[in-house]
Amino acid sequence: MVNSDKKKKCVIAVDAMGGDFAPVNELLGSLAAYNEAGDFELLLVGDKQKIVESAKEFHLDLNEKIIVHADQVIEMDESPISAIKSKPNSSLVIAARLVKDKKADAFVSGGNTGAMLAAATLIVGRIPGVGRPTIGAAFPTETGKVCLVFDAGASVDSKASHLLEYAVMGTIFSKEIYGTENPTIGLLNVGEEETKGNELSLFAYELLKKSNLNFVGNVEGRDILKGKTDIVICDGFVGNVILKFGESFMGFLKSKIKRYADAGLLNKLKALIVKSVFKTALSDIDYQTYGGVPLLGANGISIIGHGSSSPLAIKNMVLRAKEMYEKNLIQKMEEALKIYATEK
Amino acid sequence: MVNSDKKKKCVIAVDAMGGDFAPVNELLGSLAAYNEAGDFELLLVGDKQKIVESAKEFHLDLNEKIIVHADQVIEMDESPISAIKSKPNSSLVIAARLVKDKKADAFVSGGNTGAMLAAATLIVGRIPGVGRPTIGAAFPTETGKVCLVFDAGASVDSKASHLLEYAVMGTIFSKEIYGTENPTIGLLNVGEEETKGNELSLFAYELLKKSNLNFVGNVEGRDILKGKTDIVICDGFVGNVILKFGESFMGFLKSKIKRYADAGLLNKLKALIVKSVFKTALSDIDYQTYGGVPLLGANGISIIGHGSSSPLAIKNMVLRAKEMYEKNLIQKMEEALKIYATEK
Repeated sequence: MVNSDKKKKCVIAVDAMGGDFAPVNELLGSLAAYNEAGDFELLLVGDKQKIVESAKEFHLDLNEKIIVHADQVIEMDESPISAIKSKPNSSLVIAARLVKDKKADAFVSGGNTGAMLAAATLIVGRIPGVGRPTIGAAFPTETGKVCLVFDAGASVDSKASHLLEYAVMGTIFSKEIYGTENPTIGLLNVGEEETKGNELSLFAYELLKKSNLNFVGNVEGRDILKGKTDIVICDGFVGNVILKFGESFMGFLKSKIKRYADAGLLNKLKALIVKSVFKTALSDIDYQTYGGVPLLGANGISIIGHGSSSPLAIKNMVLRAKEMYEKNLIQKMEEALKIYATEK
Repeated sequence: MVNSDKKKKCVIAVDAMGGDFAPVNELLGSLAAYNEAGDFELLLVGDKQKIVESAKEFHLDLNEKIIVHADQVIEMDESPISAIKSKPNSSLVIAARLVKDKKADAFVSGGNTGAMLAAATLIVGRIPGVGRPTIGAAFPTETGKVCLVFDAGASVDSKASHLLEYAVMGTIFSKEIYGTENPTIGLLNVGEEETKGNELSLFAYELLKKSNLNFVGNVEGRDILKGKTDIVICDGFVGNVILKFGESFMGFLKSKIKRYADAGLLNKLKALIVKSVFKTALSDIDYQTYGGVPLLGANGISIIGHGSSSPLAIKNMVLRAKEMYEKNLIQKMEEALKIYATEK
């Protein structure tokens, strides 16, 4: 791939210590992304010795200059805000500070989600006009396109103005990253009628209706997997519950099929066929394809991965971060939010 | 079946005009329940002529005395409260009034859910101690037991005290109807830690913790299908969204498998095997088994069905209503709620 002359190369800081299999998966994934795309700068933030050892173990050709040493790690079960404050030399905090100090354009972590959110908000800071950052989750749909749900859990007890922000940022993300022309937006609710819902959804409906977004009205829980709209907007409490509920469905299905398979040899054979059909038919359910979820609203590209992110997932997270940077997402979101600035 | 001498026979009023296939499915289902169980009185509330005609069409032996004529019908898309006020002679309102006037012990409808809720609250009235009635949805789980989710959509913007009521009533329901010894209760939240969540869940956690219920703490979206607890408590907005999201999953899966099947003959054959495996392995997903969802908190047994309820679903709704009556659910819930009466 040829470097673009138009703008400086994207610098991506990867929290190499974040995930459950750190630094191995982070290293394998980041280097795979680098080898594939090339035209960006990679910074691996974490324990230098461990990273170098992992590189040796996997016979990877690693330039040690890209390692930014960090001698602390924020664990998965630590309380986000106190962890960030008490561990200034953690890989996550250092990666966030690189973005804050404009030494990196993006940061990627498969670590503690809450700490990542806190770092993005408190260290990197928010885009002007953003009250609250939001996490977007890409749900597979019947149509084959994804349905982007904002907020998938960045914050709870959102106000209507936050939901409007999610819709503004989500629209840019859907356009730029998924190439959706004029993304349709649905407001998640308990019924389709304008008068339905809780206090938040009634207020949010009003704001969305008078916005310049392609708001098509209320949608229900069943409309997400149907792909009724490109984007679904909701409070992070609801979004987080649906995301986790949805992620558990395949496990539920597999447990039922396993029980079926255990009942005899013919059943076992049939279950193997089911497994092979699933592999092809449901390939777009694989979370690794999306890698991680984007955190929109921080004043720097941020991608949050599963704790158990595979090398492939990490690779796709890094490539997604690069794409978000190259498409000027931050600036475009800031611009789009300006017209609503006076309404708050 | 022999009549019980201990108490008077249960009288069940069925809204014969409620569902999409009314009165046919209502008639077929109710009579099937009656023929199976026998020891209850059935009242079919609806257009007498239509009911009689349907009975003739299906060669059913119908005693016309059990028909309570109603010359109005509340349609699916009508606004609940205004429909109830403007249609006093609708099958739904008359059925509710039969319960209010102690001429029936239970009412069952596959009609407009909102109108059913409004009728239960405004006409039948609430059990003393109930601030808000709640709908319970039975989710299938990996363990084979169901997970009961309250509230699945009876109301939104619940207060913590309402969530406590749902837990109290849900515990009785789980014990009596599912035979669960000491049902475990989880509070639906975005994380397991006590300090997680929105304002509502933080307050509800406190109330549940100091209750005499078997509260085990917060659960997440993924824990429902895992069957981590017997009961999951949440606001009706969230519960409704998950219920509808969950109901859409099989449709999503089928659409993916259909697309797979369309790609060739071998695929089509494999897809047929998947279908047959699903039929056995996922038999407990069939909504018809549960029939409808119980509405707890109204001062009379109430069961709400899908608009598209099949005769089998209606039959099971009627049998469930009978069981709820015979197990004295209303009295037991009232008793259980008394100890929390002063806390509000």
